[in-house]
Amino acid sequence: MAEEAAVRAQAETVRRLKQDKADPDEIAKEVAKLLEMKAQLGGDEGKHKFVLKTPKGTRDYSPKQMAIRERVFDAIITCFKRHGAEVIDTPVFELKETLTGKYGEDSKLIYDLKDQGGELLSLRYDLTVPFARYLAMNKITNIKRYHIAKVYRRDNPATTRGRYREFYQCDFDIAGQFDPMIPDAECLKIVHEILSDLQLGDFLIKVNDRRILDGMFAVCGVPDSKFRTICSSVDKLDKMPWEEVRSEMVGEKGLSPEAADCIGDYVQLHGGLDLIEQLLQDPKLSQNKVAKEGLGDMKLLFEYLGLFGITGKVSGGCWSLAQAAQRGCGVSFSGEIPKVPEHDPGPPALGKLLEQGGLDQMISRGPFQPQPFYDGLWGSFWGQDSSSIPQTHLASEEKIRTTETQVLVASAQKKLLEERLKLIAELWDAGIKAEVLYKKNPKLLNQLQYCEDTGIPLVAIVGEQELKDGVVKLRVVATREEVNVRRESLVEEIRLRTSQP
Amino acid sequence: MAEEAAVRAQAETVRRLKQDKADPDEIAKEVAKLLEMKAQLGGDEGKHKFVLKTPKGTRDYSPKQMAIRERVFDAIITCFKRHGAEVIDTPVFELKETLTGKYGEDSKLIYDLKDQGGELLSLRYDLTVPFARYLAMNKITNIKRYHIAKVYRRDNPATTRGRYREFYQCDFDIAGQFDPMIPDAECLKIVHEILSDLQLGDFLIKVNDRRILDGMFAVCGVPDSKFRTICSSVDKLDKMPWEEVRSEMVGEKGLSPEAADCIGDYVQLHGGLDLIEQLLQDPKLSQNKVAKEGLGDMKLLFEYLGLFGITGKVSGGCWSLAQAAQRGCGVSFSGEIPKVPEHDPGPPALGKLLEQGGLDQMISRGPFQPQPFYDGLWGSFWGQDSSSIPQTHLASEEKIRTTETQVLVASAQKKLLEERLKLIAELWDAGIKAEVLYKKNPKLLNQLQYCEDTGIPLVAIVGEQELKDGVVKLRVVATREEVNVRRESLVEEIRLRTSQP
Repeated sequence: MAEEAAVRAQAETVRRLKQDKADPDEIAKEVAKLLEMKAQLGGDEGKHKFVLKTPKGTRDYSPKQMAIRERVFDAIITCFKRHGAEVIDTPVFELKETLTGKYGEDSKLIYDLKDQGGELLSLRYDLTVPFARYLAMNKITNIKRYHIAKVYRRDNPATTRGRYREFYQCDFDIAGQFDPMIPDAECLKIVHEILSDLQLGDFLIKVNDRRILDGMFAVCGVPDSKFRTICSSVDKLDKMPWEEVRSEMVGEKGLSPEAADCIGDYVQLHGGLDLIEQLLQDPKLSQNKVAKEGLGDMKLLFEYLGLFGITGKVSGGCWSLAQAAQRGCGVSFSGEIPKVPEHDPGPPALGKLLEQGGLDQMISRGPFQPQPFYDGLWGSFWGQDSSSIPQTHLASEEKIRTTETQVLVASAQKKLLEERLKLIAELWDAGIKAEVLYKKNPKLLNQLQYCEDTGIPLVAIVGEQELKDGVVKLRVVATREEVNVRRESLVEEIRLRTSQP
Repeated sequence: MAEEAAVRAQAETVRRLKQDKADPDEIAKEVAKLLEMKAQLGGDEGKHKFVLKTPKGTRDYSPKQMAIRERVFDAIITCFKRHGAEVIDTPVFELKETLTGKYGEDSKLIYDLKDQGGELLSLRYDLTVPFARYLAMNKITNIKRYHIAKVYRRDNPATTRGRYREFYQCDFDIAGQFDPMIPDAECLKIVHEILSDLQLGDFLIKVNDRRILDGMFAVCGVPDSKFRTICSSVDKLDKMPWEEVRSEMVGEKGLSPEAADCIGDYVQLHGGLDLIEQLLQDPKLSQNKVAKEGLGDMKLLFEYLGLFGITGKVSGGCWSLAQAAQRGCGVSFSGEIPKVPEHDPGPPALGKLLEQGGLDQMISRGPFQPQPFYDGLWGSFWGQDSSSIPQTHLASEEKIRTTETQVLVASAQKKLLEERLKLIAELWDAGIKAEVLYKKNPKLLNQLQYCEDTGIPLVAIVGEQELKDGVVKLRVVATREEVNVRRESLVEEIRLRTSQP
C-alpha cells in the first residue's frame, strides 16, 4: 500500500510536469524513476512478453465501424418495427444441455465454458435455439419478435472475407398457428424492404420448399437411404455445372444414371410462378402427394408476393437451397447479392445474406418436447457478419462522422474557460449536442481544426466583446461565414442550421 | 432420413388437421402416432428429464422488459451523444491473460472458457479493461467514448434485488491529457443529466479524492502498513455509525485510539465547497502535500460544477467512497438514490447506480506497459443492473406497449385477404408501421380485440362498399370513432393521427 501510494505520487508528479510542459529532460528523468518504482512493485509482472490482441476470429469495432453498424442496424430495426415485431433478449450462454443435439456435426464448433462448479454452460451458437427455449419455457404459442445479438462459432473463419467467430445475427421470427403462406410472404417482404433500403446493389431472393425436392427424389426413384447425400449434391448447383453434380451423384454416391438424369431434368428448370405452374402440370410430380402440397403452397406464396409487388426479385424452385431446407420443413429462402466480378480482388463479393427455414422442427425436437407444434418461421440475416458488409460496400465513398456533435463552444481569447463552460451547460440543458476542448486556454486555430477533423459543422465563439454585447459569434465551419447571434436565440439558431432536411 | 421424412409428413398431417379445425379425437390420434414415431426416431432423447431454464444468475428479457430497457438506454445514449461521445464495441471474451491481475480477489469471479485448443479465453468482467486494451493496442491517446454492453461475474447475486451474473454496464470515458478537472466536471454533469432525465426520484452525487484520504491518514499517524485496511473500515461509514467503525479500527485492526479519533474528527465532516474550504484551512491537513493537491483539485471541480449549475446535488468529501477510490487515483464519485423507506418491503430501494475512478492506474498497470499515461476518467452506470431499475421504479404505473404499430389492416367481411395484403403493402412502402392478422377470414371482433390487447391505436377497415367508393374506413380504437378516408389520403391521415406531440 505504501509503495503503491509512492508510485501514485510519482505518477502524479510526472503528470503535473507534462501538464506544465516542463523541461523534457526532467520529465524523462521522473518517468524513468516511475518505471523503476513500478518494476519493483510489480515483480515479474512487467517482464512477461504479452501480446496485445483480441481473441482469434474476433475484433473490436472502432467508432467509424460502429457508425456504419448503427446505420445498418437502424435500417433493419426500423423495418422489423414497421412490421409490428416485438423484441426479446436472452443470455449470451445457455445450459450446455439446451444446445445439445441441435446442430449435428457443427456441435463441435460450440464454445463451452469451463466447469467452475455449478452448471455446464455454452455460448449460444445462434438465436434460434434460445428463442425456441424461450417459447417453450414461457409456454408462448404466438409471437412475432426480432432479436439482434452476437453468436459464437469456433470455426476457422476467413476474417479477411468478413467472417468471424463472434458475429451478429438479426433474427425475425413469426411463431403461431396461421393460415398458410401469409406470414411466409411477409418475411419475404421484409427481406425485400431491407435489401432495398441498404442499397447494397441488385439482389435476388431464392425460394424453395423442401417438399418439392422430397417428392422429386421419390418420383425419380432415389432410394430413401440416399436422400440426404443426394440432397447435398443438389446443393452444389450454385457452384458447379450440372454435369459435375451428376457425375458426383453417379460416380461417388452410387445413384443410378436414370435417377440422376431424372433429377437433372427437374433441377435445371428455373423460374417463378411459371415454373410452379409447369411443375404442377408435370405428370409424375403432380401424382406425388408431398410434392403437390409443396407446389400448392408455393403457388399461394407467389400469389401473395404478387399482391406485395415483389415477385420481380424472387426466384422459385431454387434447388441449391436443399441443404438449408433440410433443417426445417416448408418454405425456405435466401437473399443473395450476385457476385460482381469487377470487385475482385477488391472488396469481397457479397454472397448469401440471409436464410430462412421452418421453426417447427426446432421447437418440437429434442429436450423441448413435449411442446405444441409451431408453424413458425425464421428469417435470419447472417452469412457474412451483417455488420461487416457495409465496411466494403457502403462506406467506400463518403466520409463518415463518428459523433453527432452540432457545435463546438470556443473562445478566441484567454481566460474564458468559465464563460465557455457556462455557455455549453446552457446548450446541453437545451438538448443541443455540444463539445468543448478540455484546455484552459486553447488556441482558436486548434479549436477550428478539431471541428474540421471531427466534422462538427458549427462553432459558437465567446469573446470579451461578444459577452459585453450579449451575443455569441456563430461560425459555419464549411463556409467560414460568421454571424453574431443574440444569446437567447442561439439554441434556436443552432437547431435551424443543423436540422436534417 | 426416410424415417425423418415420415415424421415430417406426419407432423404436416397434424398441422393440417389443426388448421382445418378437424375433430379433436382425430387430432389426438394423429398426435399420439407422431409422438410414438418421434420416440422411436429419437431413441432415449425424449426420455431424459430436461429442465427448461436460463443459466443461474441470468434471465431473458421479455418484450415488455425490452421496451423499458430501450427507454432507459435511449436516455443514456442520448446524453452521451449530446456530449459528443463516440462509441466502440469489443468482443464478449478476451484473452485470459488480458484480464489476469486486474481484479485482485474478485478474479475468482471471472468466467473462463473451456480449453478447446487454441487460446485461453475469459468473458469480460467489465468494460474498462477491454477499453484499456483497445487504447493500448491501437496506440490511442485521446478519445471520448461510450460502450454499453453486458459483463459477466460468477458472483452469488441476489436476482430478487435485481443483481445478476450477466448484466449491463454503460461506460462513458474520457482519455487524454487535459487541464485538471474539466473532463471530471463534465462526467458529473452527465451523471446529473441522466439521473434527472430518468426521473428515478431524488438523487445525490457523492464525490471524493483519494489524495485527501491519503493525506488524512498520514497526518493522523496511520502506519503505511494499515492504510488499506483502515480504508476499508472508512468505507463502511455509509452502513454503520462512526462509533462502530472506530471500534473496528481500534479493536480488530489494532489502530491506536488517538489515530482513530483523529480520523473520526475528519470523516464526520460533511459538505460541499464549504467543507473543502474548511479542510484547506485545517492546520495539519494543509501542511500535507498530497492532501493539499487533492483539496485544490476538489475546489476547482466545485467551481466548474457551479458554472454547470449542479452543485445542489453534489456532496464533497464523501469518505465512504474510499474503497472505490483505491482503484484509481484522483477524483471518484458515485450517484445514489437515497433509500425510500415506504418502498420497503415493496420494490427494492435503489442504491449506488454508478461510480467513477481514474483510468490511468488501469492502463499503466500490468501487461499494457509500457504505455503512455492517461489522465482518463471512467464513469460507469452499474451497481444494480441498470436495465432492472425501471422494472420497479419506472414501470409501475403505466401500461407499456411492446410494439410501435400505428394501424391494423382489417376487414369486416370474408374473402378480403387479398385486399388487406394489397393495402398493407402500400402502407409499409410509405413507412407506416402496420400489421395484419395471418388469417384468411378473421372476425372483425378478433381484429379489434387484437388492437385493444396490443395498444394499436387505429384500424384501417376494407370492405366491399369501401373498395367501390375508393375509401378506407379508419377507426380510432380508443373512441370507436369511424371516418371514411380517401385511399390516396390514408397515409397522411394515419401520420397525422399518430404523430407524437
